[in-house]
Amino acid sequence: MCDVVPCETDVGPVGMMKMYGNWRSAAAFRVRIALKLKGLAYEETFIDLDAGDQHAPEFRKINPQGAVPALFDGDGPPLTQSLAILDYLEETKGGVPLLPADPRERARARSLAQLVACDTHPLYVPRVRNYLMEAYDLPKERMMGFVRHAFETGLKTLETRLSTEDGTGRFSQGDAVSHADLCLVSLWVGTAIFGVETAPYPTVARIAETCLALPAFAEAHPKRQPGAPAA
Amino acid sequence: MCDVVPCETDVGPVGMMKMYGNWRSAAAFRVRIALKLKGLAYEETFIDLDAGDQHAPEFRKINPQGAVPALFDGDGPPLTQSLAILDYLEETKGGVPLLPADPRERARARSLAQLVACDTHPLYVPRVRNYLMEAYDLPKERMMGFVRHAFETGLKTLETRLSTEDGTGRFSQGDAVSHADLCLVSLWVGTAIFGVETAPYPTVARIAETCLALPAFAEAHPKRQPGAPAA
Repeated sequence: MCDVVPCETDVGPVGMMKMYGNWRSAAAFRVRIALKLKGLAYEETFIDLDAGDQHAPEFRKINPQGAVPALFDGDGPPLTQSLAILDYLEETKGGVPLLPADPRERARARSLAQLVACDTHPLYVPRVRNYLMEAYDLPKERMMGFVRHAFETGLKTLETRLSTEDGTGRFSQGDAVSHADLCLVSLWVGTAIFGVETAPYPTVARIAETCLALPAFAEAHPKRQPGAPAA
Repeated sequence: MCDVVPCETDVGPVGMMKMYGNWRSAAAFRVRIALKLKGLAYEETFIDLDAGDQHAPEFRKINPQGAVPALFDGDGPPLTQSLAILDYLEETKGGVPLLPADPRERARARSLAQLVACDTHPLYVPRVRNYLMEAYDLPKERMMGFVRHAFETGLKTLETRLSTEDGTGRFSQGDAVSHADLCLVSLWVGTAIFGVETAPYPTVARIAETCLALPAFAEAHPKRQPGAPAA
């Protein structure tokens, strides 16, 4: 287990970090998994995205983008953007590494992560869905075609790469969890929320299920956070 | 000049890298700037995105996503996703550093870069524009409202952060060029291509103009690449 989840002997004493997140946010989910895999103490404040609390002036002072996650580590200014936070944790904290040591393997793990975090997830966030419905007067069901197309395009490329590239192992990059898996799983759990068919993506499914069987991923899962619907 | 452009004494002998790009691609532009700033020898093959050459089977073998850039460095498999390529160059090549040494400053530079490369640029790429026009039967001018909204949302956040956060200096993060500037400039040159008003973003404008006055940025500019319109 020590290769994917932190063992007590690996993790030194750390200060309490403070994160602003949301049960449903794919980006907050990625960071939550990393914090748990690295055994880092943190507390999370849940911002109600449906109520628009991310646009409140107090939160805009924390993140002018009005988006979660934002992470406070000590007295410094807030850290924002999930992939930047993951790299920061990698560069400054102990615990299990979440990027390979080899530069080419790191580049592949990051490329797979960015396929999700840059080219897929930003297309279906609330601000985009709301804009489409309002500017083009689309009923929700027609707008959802755009969301499903984004998921399907991302998942199809991910499946092709993971099922054909030599780098794939038990996880997206080799046999250890990396940023690629955190992003993959954050996309995967969205398929249930948005009603996206998953049968065409068996390799993505295998890796997602392998990850979600690990305690850190299971505990970080959106449905186990405050605010998540009971069903 | 040595703080932002490579001096010969900083750069050792390097092999010729091969990049697949396009004159107009914001993501290829970022990588092209980094290669030039670091003084790395490369040749670029220009993929005709308007003709759909990115979807040709031969190119899908290089990048199953059907997107540029893709970079070959020696005999390894192609490197994809612009930010992953920038980190790879940072970790493996000589030349001027394009990330600060301090982890918090690195995190801020990366966060600013990702505000553009994750949350803004992916919203206006050809595959999204084409989907909106086809699926929702939108004439081009109405679809362009979505593109301008994406630009304006990204630029507004960027302006707020750069004009209020302590980390801003001559460039986005302090007084040296970083990944944040490569992304900022790649967004900025798009405002002319897509007809986006720039007056509300004076800090972004100042940094973009400072960057574009440097030879590496000027030489990497979309309008100076093969395939760019003469006007």
